[in-house]
Amino acid sequence: MDDTLSGYAYGDPSLPPSPVTIEDLARLKQAVGLDDEDMAALRRAGRILSPRADVVVDSWRQAVAAVPHLLAAYASAEGVIDDRYRVRVRERFKRWIDDLCFRPWDQPWLDYQHEIGARHTHLAKNKADAAAAVGHIPLRYLIAFTAVVNDRVKPFLVESGAAAEEVEAMHRAWCKAALLSVTLWTRPYVADSAW
Amino acid sequence: MDDTLSGYAYGDPSLPPSPVTIEDLARLKQAVGLDDEDMAALRRAGRILSPRADVVVDSWRQAVAAVPHLLAAYASAEGVIDDRYRVRVRERFKRWIDDLCFRPWDQPWLDYQHEIGARHTHLAKNKADAAAAVGHIPLRYLIAFTAVVNDRVKPFLVESGAAAEEVEAMHRAWCKAALLSVTLWTRPYVADSAW
Repeated sequence: MDDTLSGYAYGDPSLPPSPVTIEDLARLKQAVGLDDEDMAALRRAGRILSPRADVVVDSWRQAVAAVPHLLAAYASAEGVIDDRYRVRVRERFKRWIDDLCFRPWDQPWLDYQHEIGARHTHLAKNKADAAAAVGHIPLRYLIAFTAVVNDRVKPFLVESGAAAEEVEAMHRAWCKAALLSVTLWTRPYVADSAW
Repeated sequence: MDDTLSGYAYGDPSLPPSPVTIEDLARLKQAVGLDDEDMAALRRAGRILSPRADVVVDSWRQAVAAVPHLLAAYASAEGVIDDRYRVRVRERFKRWIDDLCFRPWDQPWLDYQHEIGARHTHLAKNKADAAAAVGHIPLRYLIAFTAVVNDRVKPFLVESGAAAEEVEAMHRAWCKAALLSVTLWTRPYVADSAW
Protein backbone atom coordinates (compact mmCIF):
# COMPACT_ATOMS: atom_id res chain seq x y z
CA MET A 1 0.00 0.00 0.00
CA ASP A 2 1.18 3.50 -0.89
CA ASP A 3 2.79 5.02 2.18
CA THR A 4 0.78 8.21 1.81
CA LEU A 5 -2.26 6.06 2.46
CA SER A 6 -0.96 4.77 5.75
CA GLY A 7 -3.67 4.89 8.30
CA TYR A 8 -6.30 3.98 5.73
CA ALA A 9 -7.77 1.01 7.55
CA TYR A 10 -10.76 0.08 5.41
CA GLY A 11 -11.45 -3.62 5.85
CA ASP A 12 -8.73 -4.03 8.47
CA PRO A 13 -9.90 -6.98 10.58
CA SER A 14 -8.37 -5.39 13.68
CA LEU A 15 -10.84 -2.47 13.47
CA PRO A 16 -13.44 -2.59 16.24
CA PRO A 17 -16.86 -3.39 14.78
CA SER A 18 -19.25 -0.46 14.49
CA PRO A 19 -22.11 -0.57 16.98
CA VAL A 20 -24.29 0.53 14.05
CA THR A 21 -25.94 -2.44 12.39
CA ILE A 22 -26.91 -3.00 8.77
CA GLU A 23 -30.53 -2.59 9.90
CA ASP A 24 -29.66 0.77 11.52
CA LEU A 25 -28.03 1.79 8.26
CA ALA A 26 -31.14 0.90 6.27
CA ARG A 27 -33.20 3.10 8.62
CA LEU A 28 -30.69 5.91 8.32
CA LYS A 29 -30.89 5.73 4.51
CA GLN A 30 -34.63 6.22 4.84
CA ALA A 31 -34.12 9.16 7.17
CA VAL A 32 -31.96 11.03 4.64
CA GLY A 33 -34.28 9.91 1.85
CA LEU A 34 -31.74 7.89 -0.14
CA ASP A 35 -33.48 5.57 -2.57
CA ASP A 36 -32.20 3.26 -5.33
CA GLU A 37 -32.24 6.05 -7.91
CA ASP A 38 -30.11 8.18 -5.60
CA MET A 39 -27.66 5.33 -5.10
CA ALA A 40 -27.27 5.02 -8.88
CA ALA A 41 -26.84 8.81 -9.19
CA LEU A 42 -24.26 8.73 -6.40
CA ARG A 43 -22.23 6.24 -8.41
CA ARG A 44 -22.38 8.51 -11.45
CA ALA A 45 -21.30 11.46 -9.29
CA GLY A 46 -18.39 9.34 -8.10
CA ARG A 47 -17.26 8.75 -11.67
CA ILE A 48 -16.93 12.52 -12.07
CA LEU A 49 -15.48 13.30 -8.65
CA SER A 50 -13.07 10.39 -8.19
CA PRO A 51 -10.72 11.25 -11.07
CA ARG A 52 -10.66 14.84 -9.77
CA ALA A 53 -10.33 13.89 -6.12
CA ASP A 54 -7.18 16.00 -5.76
CA VAL A 55 -8.91 19.24 -6.68
CA VAL A 56 -12.17 18.34 -4.98
CA VAL A 57 -10.43 17.69 -1.68
CA ASP A 58 -8.31 20.81 -2.15
CA SER A 59 -11.47 22.86 -2.54
CA TRP A 60 -12.68 21.55 0.83
CA ARG A 61 -9.34 22.05 2.47
CA GLN A 62 -9.05 25.62 1.24
CA ALA A 63 -12.22 26.26 3.21
CA VAL A 64 -10.66 24.63 6.27
CA ALA A 65 -7.45 26.62 5.88
CA ALA A 66 -9.43 29.87 5.73
CA VAL A 67 -11.05 29.25 9.12
CA PRO A 68 -8.62 29.20 12.07
CA HIS A 69 -10.88 27.18 14.37
CA LEU A 70 -11.20 24.48 11.70
CA LEU A 71 -7.52 24.46 10.82
CA ALA A 72 -6.85 24.02 14.54
CA ALA A 73 -7.73 20.32 14.17
CA TYR A 74 -4.34 19.77 12.51
CA ALA A 75 -2.39 21.77 15.07
CA SER A 76 -1.10 21.43 18.59
CA ALA A 77 -2.73 23.39 21.39
CA GLU A 78 0.01 25.97 20.76
CA GLY A 79 -1.11 26.30 17.13
CA VAL A 80 1.75 24.46 15.43
CA ILE A 81 0.38 22.57 12.43
CA ASP A 82 1.49 18.97 11.93
CA ASP A 83 2.03 19.00 8.17
CA ARG A 84 2.70 15.28 7.87
CA TYR A 85 -0.64 14.58 9.56
CA ARG A 86 -2.37 17.03 7.24
CA VAL A 87 -0.99 15.32 4.15
CA ARG A 88 -2.01 11.90 5.38
CA VAL A 89 -5.54 13.02 6.21
CA ARG A 90 -5.77 14.65 2.80
CA GLU A 91 -5.01 11.37 1.02
CA ARG A 92 -7.58 9.54 3.10
CA PHE A 93 -10.14 12.27 2.47
CA LYS A 94 -9.71 11.57 -1.26
CA ARG A 95 -10.32 7.91 -0.65
CA TRP A 96 -13.52 8.76 1.24
CA ILE A 97 -15.06 9.94 -2.05
CA ASP A 98 -14.48 6.50 -3.56
CA ASP A 99 -15.65 4.70 -0.45
CA LEU A 100 -18.84 6.75 -0.38
CA CYS A 101 -19.69 6.43 -4.05
CA PHE A 102 -18.46 2.97 -5.03
CA ARG A 103 -18.14 0.66 -2.04
CA PRO A 104 -20.95 -1.59 -0.95
CA TRP A 105 -22.47 -0.16 2.21
CA ASP A 106 -21.88 -3.27 4.26
CA GLN A 107 -20.43 -4.08 7.68
CA PRO A 108 -16.79 -3.30 6.75
CA TRP A 109 -18.00 0.04 5.36
CA LEU A 110 -19.86 0.76 8.60
CA ASP A 111 -16.84 -0.28 10.66
CA TYR A 112 -14.62 2.16 8.82
CA GLN A 113 -17.16 4.99 9.06
CA HIS A 114 -17.13 4.39 12.80
CA GLU A 115 -13.35 4.45 12.86
CA ILE A 116 -13.33 7.76 10.95
CA GLY A 117 -15.74 9.17 13.52
CA ALA A 118 -13.59 7.96 16.42
CA ARG A 119 -10.56 9.58 14.80
CA HIS A 120 -12.27 12.94 15.30
CA THR A 121 -12.61 12.33 19.05
CA HIS A 122 -10.48 11.63 22.09
CA LEU A 123 -11.03 7.93 21.41
CA ALA A 124 -8.67 7.77 18.45
CA LYS A 125 -7.63 11.21 17.20
CA ASN A 126 -3.97 11.37 16.11
CA LYS A 127 -3.39 7.69 16.85
CA ALA A 128 -3.24 6.36 13.28
CA ASP A 129 -0.71 9.05 12.37
CA ALA A 130 1.10 9.58 15.67
CA ALA A 131 0.11 13.19 15.04
CA ALA A 132 1.06 16.13 17.26
CA ALA A 133 -2.35 17.78 17.27
CA VAL A 134 -5.26 18.59 19.56
CA GLY A 135 -7.11 15.55 20.83
CA HIS A 136 -10.62 16.35 19.70
CA ILE A 137 -12.66 18.02 16.97
CA PRO A 138 -15.85 19.63 18.29
CA LEU A 139 -18.97 17.83 17.13
CA ARG A 140 -20.49 21.08 15.89
CA TYR A 141 -17.74 21.63 13.34
CA LEU A 142 -17.89 18.05 12.14
CA ILE A 143 -21.59 18.42 11.35
CA ALA A 144 -21.47 22.02 10.12
CA PHE A 145 -18.65 21.47 7.66
CA THR A 146 -20.86 19.08 5.68
CA ALA A 147 -22.49 22.21 4.24
CA VAL A 148 -19.16 23.26 2.76
CA VAL A 149 -18.40 19.78 1.44
CA ASN A 150 -21.76 19.62 -0.29
CA ASP A 151 -21.69 23.15 -1.62
CA ARG A 152 -18.22 22.79 -3.10
CA VAL A 153 -18.96 19.53 -4.86
CA LYS A 154 -21.57 21.14 -7.08
CA PRO A 155 -19.24 23.05 -9.44
CA PHE A 156 -17.39 19.85 -10.29
CA LEU A 157 -20.63 18.19 -11.27
CA VAL A 158 -21.60 21.24 -13.34
CA GLU A 159 -18.20 21.35 -15.05
CA SER A 160 -18.63 17.74 -16.12
CA GLY A 161 -20.96 18.99 -18.82
CA ALA A 162 -23.84 16.82 -17.64
CA ALA A 163 -27.34 18.15 -18.34
CA ALA A 164 -28.78 20.38 -15.63
CA GLU A 165 -31.27 17.74 -14.53
CA GLU A 166 -28.54 15.12 -14.22
CA VAL A 167 -26.36 17.52 -12.23
CA GLU A 168 -29.28 18.01 -9.85
CA ALA A 169 -29.82 14.27 -9.49
CA MET A 170 -26.15 13.64 -8.78
CA HIS A 171 -25.87 16.51 -6.33
CA ARG A 172 -29.05 15.53 -4.50
CA ALA A 173 -27.70 12.00 -4.09
CA TRP A 174 -24.28 13.25 -3.00
CA CYS A 175 -25.75 15.59 -0.36
CA LYS A 176 -27.85 12.84 1.17
CA ALA A 177 -25.00 10.32 1.14
CA ALA A 178 -22.41 12.71 2.56
CA LEU A 179 -24.71 13.71 5.41
CA LEU A 180 -25.42 10.04 6.11
CA SER A 181 -21.70 9.33 6.29
CA VAL A 182 -21.09 12.29 8.62
CA THR A 183 -24.05 11.21 10.75
CA LEU A 184 -22.29 7.86 11.20
CA TRP A 185 -19.17 9.75 12.25
CA THR A 186 -21.13 11.36 15.09
CA ARG A 187 -21.78 7.96 16.70
CA PRO A 188 -18.63 7.93 18.88
CA TYR A 189 -19.43 11.41 20.22
CA VAL A 190 -22.54 10.48 22.15
CA ALA A 191 -23.93 8.02 24.66
CA ASP A 192 -25.52 4.90 23.19
CA SER A 193 -28.95 6.02 24.31
CA ALA A 194 -28.66 9.46 22.69
CA TRP A 195 -27.56 8.51 19.18
CA MET B 1 -51.15 34.53 20.67
CA ASP B 2 -52.92 32.04 18.42
CA ASP B 3 -53.60 28.89 20.42
CA THR B 4 -52.17 26.70 17.64
CA LEU B 5 -48.88 28.41 18.32
CA SER B 6 -48.85 27.50 21.97
CA GLY B 7 -45.47 26.24 22.95
CA TYR B 8 -43.77 28.71 20.64
CA ALA B 9 -41.46 30.28 23.20
CA TYR B 10 -39.28 32.56 21.10
CA GLY B 11 -38.09 35.43 23.27
CA ASP B 12 -39.74 34.00 26.39
CA PRO B 13 -37.63 35.39 29.26
CA SER B 14 -38.21 32.18 31.24
CA LEU B 15 -36.27 30.16 28.63
CA PRO B 16 -32.90 29.00 29.94
CA PRO B 17 -30.10 30.83 28.14
CA SER B 18 -28.26 28.83 25.50
CA PRO B 19 -24.74 27.83 26.50
CA VAL B 20 -23.78 28.78 22.93
CA THR B 21 -22.48 32.33 22.78
CA ILE B 22 -22.70 34.93 20.04
CA GLU B 23 -18.98 34.33 19.47
CA ASP B 24 -19.61 30.58 19.11
CA LEU B 25 -22.32 31.39 16.59
CA ALA B 26 -19.97 33.56 14.55
CA ARG B 27 -17.50 30.66 14.43
CA LEU B 28 -20.24 28.24 13.45
CA LYS B 29 -21.29 30.54 10.60
CA GLN B 30 -17.73 30.36 9.32
CA ALA B 31 -17.74 26.58 9.63
CA VAL B 32 -20.79 26.24 7.36
CA GLY B 33 -19.42 28.95 5.11
CA LEU B 34 -22.26 31.46 5.56
CA ASP B 35 -21.19 34.91 4.44
CA ASP B 36 -23.06 38.21 4.07
CA GLU B 37 -24.17 37.36 0.53
CA ASP B 38 -25.63 34.12 1.81
CA MET B 39 -27.46 35.91 4.60
CA ALA B 40 -29.05 38.23 2.02
CA ALA B 41 -29.95 35.26 -0.19
CA LEU B 42 -31.44 33.48 2.82
CA ARG B 43 -33.74 36.44 3.36
CA ARG B 44 -34.84 36.29 -0.29
CA ALA B 45 -35.45 32.55 0.08
CA GLY B 46 -37.57 33.31 3.13
CA ARG B 47 -39.75 35.68 1.13
CA ILE B 48 -40.58 32.75 -1.18
CA LEU B 49 -40.89 30.06 1.47
CA SER B 50 -42.69 31.93 4.23
CA PRO B 51 -45.95 32.59 2.35
CA ARG B 52 -45.94 28.91 1.34
CA ALA B 53 -44.94 27.61 4.77
CA ASP B 54 -47.99 25.35 4.90
CA VAL B 55 -47.02 23.36 1.81
CA VAL B 56 -43.30 23.51 2.54
CA VAL B 57 -43.78 22.02 5.98
CA ASP B 58 -46.25 19.49 4.58
CA SER B 59 -43.62 18.35 2.08
CA TRP B 60 -41.24 17.67 4.98
CA ARG B 61 -43.90 15.99 7.06
CA GLN B 62 -44.95 13.72 4.23
CA ALA B 63 -41.38 12.42 4.31
CA VAL B 64 -41.66 11.90 8.06
CA ALA B 65 -45.01 10.14 7.72
CA ALA B 66 -43.55 7.75 5.14
CA VAL B 67 -40.83 6.54 7.51
CA PRO B 68 -42.15 4.68 10.58
CA HIS B 69 -39.04 5.29 12.71
CA LEU B 70 -39.35 9.04 12.08
CA LEU B 71 -43.09 9.16 12.64
CA ALA B 72 -42.43 7.38 15.94
CA ALA B 73 -41.35 10.71 17.44
CA TYR B 74 -45.01 11.74 17.60
CA ALA B 75 -46.21 8.45 19.07
CA SER B 76 -46.21 6.63 22.37
CA ALA B 77 -43.94 3.64 22.84
CA GLU B 78 -47.00 1.59 21.83
CA GLY B 79 -47.19 3.46 18.51
CA VAL B 80 -50.25 5.61 19.22
CA ILE B 81 -49.76 8.98 17.54
CA ASP B 82 -50.59 12.11 19.55
CA ASP B 83 -52.34 14.13 16.86
CA ARG B 84 -52.67 17.28 18.93
CA TYR B 85 -48.91 17.26 19.49
CA ARG B 86 -48.30 16.73 15.79
CA VAL B 87 -50.43 19.73 14.86
CA ARG B 88 -48.73 21.96 17.37
CA VAL B 89 -45.26 20.93 16.20
CA ARG B 90 -46.35 21.53 12.62
CA GLU B 91 -47.30 25.13 13.36
CA ARG B 92 -44.02 25.76 15.12
CA PHE B 93 -42.11 24.13 12.26
CA LYS B 94 -43.66 26.74 9.95
CA ARG B 95 -42.51 29.46 12.27
CA TRP B 96 -38.97 28.04 12.16
CA ILE B 97 -38.76 29.09 8.50
CA ASP B 98 -39.43 32.70 9.46
CA ASP B 99 -37.12 32.56 12.45
CA LEU B 100 -34.32 31.17 10.30
CA CYS B 101 -34.70 33.58 7.41
CA PHE B 102 -35.82 36.84 9.01
CA ARG B 103 -34.89 37.02 12.69
CA PRO B 104 -31.66 38.58 13.83
CA TRP B 105 -29.34 35.79 14.92
CA ASP B 106 -28.88 37.14 18.43
CA GLN B 107 -29.02 35.74 21.95
CA PRO B 108 -32.83 35.24 22.02
CA TRP B 109 -32.50 33.39 18.69
CA LEU B 110 -29.76 31.19 20.14
CA ASP B 111 -31.80 30.58 23.28
CA TYR B 112 -34.76 29.35 21.26
CA GLN B 113 -32.58 27.17 19.01
CA HIS B 114 -31.32 25.55 22.19
CA GLU B 115 -34.85 25.08 23.46
CA ILE B 116 -35.84 23.42 20.16
CA GLY B 117 -32.88 21.08 20.54
CA ALA B 118 -33.81 20.22 24.12
CA ARG B 119 -37.37 19.48 22.99
CA HIS B 120 -35.94 16.62 20.93
CA THR B 121 -34.31 15.06 24.00
CA HIS B 122 -35.24 13.71 27.41
CA LEU B 123 -34.55 17.19 28.78
CA ALA B 124 -37.72 18.73 27.40
CA LYS B 125 -39.47 16.50 24.87
CA ASN B 126 -43.27 16.58 25.17
CA LYS B 127 -43.20 19.14 27.99
CA ALA B 128 -44.38 22.20 26.07
CA ASP B 129 -47.33 20.25 24.69
CA ALA B 130 -48.00 17.76 27.51
CA ALA B 131 -47.67 15.25 24.69
CA ALA B 132 -48.12 11.51 25.03
CA ALA B 133 -45.10 10.49 22.99
CA VAL B 134 -41.70 8.84 23.32
CA GLY B 135 -39.23 10.82 25.38
CA HIS B 136 -36.38 11.17 22.91
CA ILE B 137 -35.57 11.54 19.23
CA PRO B 138 -32.31 9.81 18.28
CA LEU B 139 -29.57 12.28 17.36
CA ARG B 140 -28.90 10.46 14.11
CA TYR B 141 -32.38 11.14 12.77
CA LEU B 142 -32.26 14.78 13.80
CA ILE B 143 -29.09 15.30 11.77
CA ALA B 144 -29.98 13.03 8.87
CA PHE B 145 -33.39 14.56 8.23
CA THR B 146 -31.71 17.86 7.35
CA ALA B 147 -30.99 16.26 3.97
CA VAL B 148 -34.72 15.88 3.35
CA VAL B 149 -35.49 19.40 4.54
CA ASN B 150 -32.89 20.85 2.20
CA ASP B 151 -33.78 18.69 -0.75
CA ARG B 152 -37.49 19.44 -0.53
CA VAL B 153 -37.03 23.19 -0.30
CA LYS B 154 -35.48 23.38 -3.73
CA PRO B 155 -38.64 22.88 -5.84
CA PHE B 156 -40.34 25.79 -4.08
CA LEU B 157 -37.43 28.04 -4.98
CA VAL B 158 -37.54 26.80 -8.57
CA GLU B 159 -41.30 27.31 -8.80
CA SER B 160 -40.90 30.93 -7.75
CA GLY B 161 -39.72 31.65 -11.28
CA ALA B 162 -36.40 33.07 -10.12
CA ALA B 163 -33.49 32.73 -12.55
CA ALA B 164 -31.47 29.53 -12.20
CA GLU B 165 -28.51 31.36 -10.71
CA GLU B 166 -30.69 33.05 -8.12
CA VAL B 167 -32.33 29.73 -7.22
CA GLU B 168 -28.85 28.30 -6.65
CA ALA B 169 -27.83 31.24 -4.47
CA MET B 170 -30.96 30.98 -2.36
CA HIS B 171 -30.73 27.22 -2.02
CA ARG B 172 -27.03 27.33 -1.12
CA ALA B 173 -27.79 29.86 1.62
CA TRP B 174 -30.77 27.88 2.87
CA CYS B 175 -28.77 24.61 3.08
CA LYS B 176 -26.00 26.24 5.10
CA ALA B 177 -28.41 28.04 7.42
CA ALA B 178 -30.63 25.00 8.01
CA LEU B 179 -27.63 22.83 8.86
CA LEU B 180 -26.35 25.52 11.20
CA SER B 181 -29.69 25.61 12.98
CA VAL B 182 -29.81 21.82 13.29
CA THR B 183 -26.22 21.83 14.54
CA LEU B 184 -27.36 24.14 17.33
CA TRP B 185 -30.15 21.67 18.09
CA THR B 186 -27.53 18.97 18.71
CA ARG B 187 -26.05 20.94 21.62
CA PRO B 188 -28.26 19.41 24.35
CA TYR B 189 -27.43 15.88 23.15
CA VAL B 190 -23.79 15.89 24.11
CA ALA B 191 -21.37 16.65 26.91
CA ASP B 192 -20.05 20.22 27.03
CA SER B 193 -16.58 19.02 26.10
CA ALA B 194 -17.75 17.08 23.04
CA TRP B 195 -19.84 19.69 21.29
